[in-house]
Amino acid sequence: MTELTARKEITVVREGERNVTGDDVVVEAPLTIFLNGKELVTLLCTPEKLESLALGFLRSEGLLNSIDEVAGLRLHSDRGAVEVELKEKSGLLDKLYGRRTITSGCGKGTVFYSALDALRSSPLSGDEVSLTAGEIHSLMGELQERSSLFKATGGVHSAALAGGGKILLFCEDIGRHNAVDKIIGECLQQGMAMDDKVLVCSGRLSSEILLKAAKLRLPMLISRAAPTTLSIELAESLNITLVGFVRGRRMNIYTHPYRVK
Amino acid sequence: MTELTARKEITVVREGERNVTGDDVVVEAPLTIFLNGKELVTLLCTPEKLESLALGFLRSEGLLNSIDEVAGLRLHSDRGAVEVELKEKSGLLDKLYGRRTITSGCGKGTVFYSALDALRSSPLSGDEVSLTAGEIHSLMGELQERSSLFKATGGVHSAALAGGGKILLFCEDIGRHNAVDKIIGECLQQGMAMDDKVLVCSGRLSSEILLKAAKLRLPMLISRAAPTTLSIELAESLNITLVGFVRGRRMNIYTHPYRVK
Repeated sequence: MTELTARKEITVVREGERNVTGDDVVVEAPLTIFLNGKELVTLLCTPEKLESLALGFLRSEGLLNSIDEVAGLRLHSDRGAVEVELKEKSGLLDKLYGRRTITSGCGKGTVFYSALDALRSSPLSGDEVSLTAGEIHSLMGELQERSSLFKATGGVHSAALAGGGKILLFCEDIGRHNAVDKIIGECLQQGMAMDDKVLVCSGRLSSEILLKAAKLRLPMLISRAAPTTLSIELAESLNITLVGFVRGRRMNIYTHPYRVK
Repeated sequence: MTELTARKEITVVREGERNVTGDDVVVEAPLTIFLNGKELVTLLCTPEKLESLALGFLRSEGLLNSIDEVAGLRLHSDRGAVEVELKEKSGLLDKLYGRRTITSGCGKGTVFYSALDALRSSPLSGDEVSLTAGEIHSLMGELQERSSLFKATGGVHSAALAGGGKILLFCEDIGRHNAVDKIIGECLQQGMAMDDKVLVCSGRLSSEILLKAAKLRLPMLISRAAPTTLSIELAESLNITLVGFVRGRRMNIYTHPYRVK
């Protein structure tokens, strides 16, 4: 397996005193996704769970809906590449190259607007999903507890999928979006439903994270960081519960507080 | 001017007690960049300094080298769009659409590799730039001091350009990359040289941030957060001084410590 941290020689300056010492730094590596033989995108990421990242990225970009559409998936760790082969080939190139804009997993492109329109027309139900405030704090505590790469390097985000008050899947990545895409990819691989689960994040809840979750009909997002106006407005209209600033003994519920008991 | 925060009604849960109250949330808005009449990209950002953001994004993507190449620049705040007209029109479309990959300001795409190759061949000099450890701490202190939007919302990153130990330009944005692109755009607009300046960031120093700085031949980057292996390796080979974890009375110098006196 590829190492996730590397020892670097650094100069620490503390109270004016200099010391040369070793430090663990988080590994950042490029992953190029090839879709049906065509180079699609290069992501900069933490080199683990790369098949999940590729699948989750394709799912978030709307290029894939279910694992049944995948005919082949092959990771080439040595050259930072993953090949994804879809069964259905027709129409895909149109989908991709018919877009006049440069787009990406960072919510850039007109795909953003069409996604909004599509999602707004069908708000989520997920009314049976709820957590107590205590469960939310304990999920956030467990997220931080499990973030070993963050503890070692301070340079990654973490994301988790929780069900029944427990963390079921956990991923770390240098990219906030990648961490969530890895969770989505793992769900696809394990055939796990997401519409009755809760997404737990270390990072900010921007509209792009909200949209990734909404596409999977996830009814609840919790984070230790801040949301934005756009993510709140989307969550409001899509019936998603957004909880931010889960820290110490407090939290802010931005939308649909009825899911927090 | 567009508002940068919005008051939202939230439910605060603290020690098990619930209160409905008002909270300032950072505004996130889409900005679509049109280049020579063609829709290029939609960025999700903090709606201020949008002309600078557009110019900086184009500069970082290699679509623009100097302000002299710009024939027109028009912001339409009402519809979240900015039109950039370049004098030189030939070759641009090839540059853009000749790329077989989907790319973005998030370092996605093969442009990443060609940028690396180009940069590696010409390491920076910038040997006359240096700061004392005390100056670095005071720049970081000033960055935090000036981050009014962060103080109000906790939801943005900040970036600054420093020269002669002083902050010359300061920008905030919900996106780490956008904040740096705004700085780059402002530099272009003001005709300010960057190769004798220092970039000060609140966020992590990933390879994408390093590359943005390297393209402008900035010799020194400082941040209160972590770098990655890839940014350290690039900084090492490009003769850029990388300083991270500038917090309290300490800092880590990852590369070329000779610029810290």
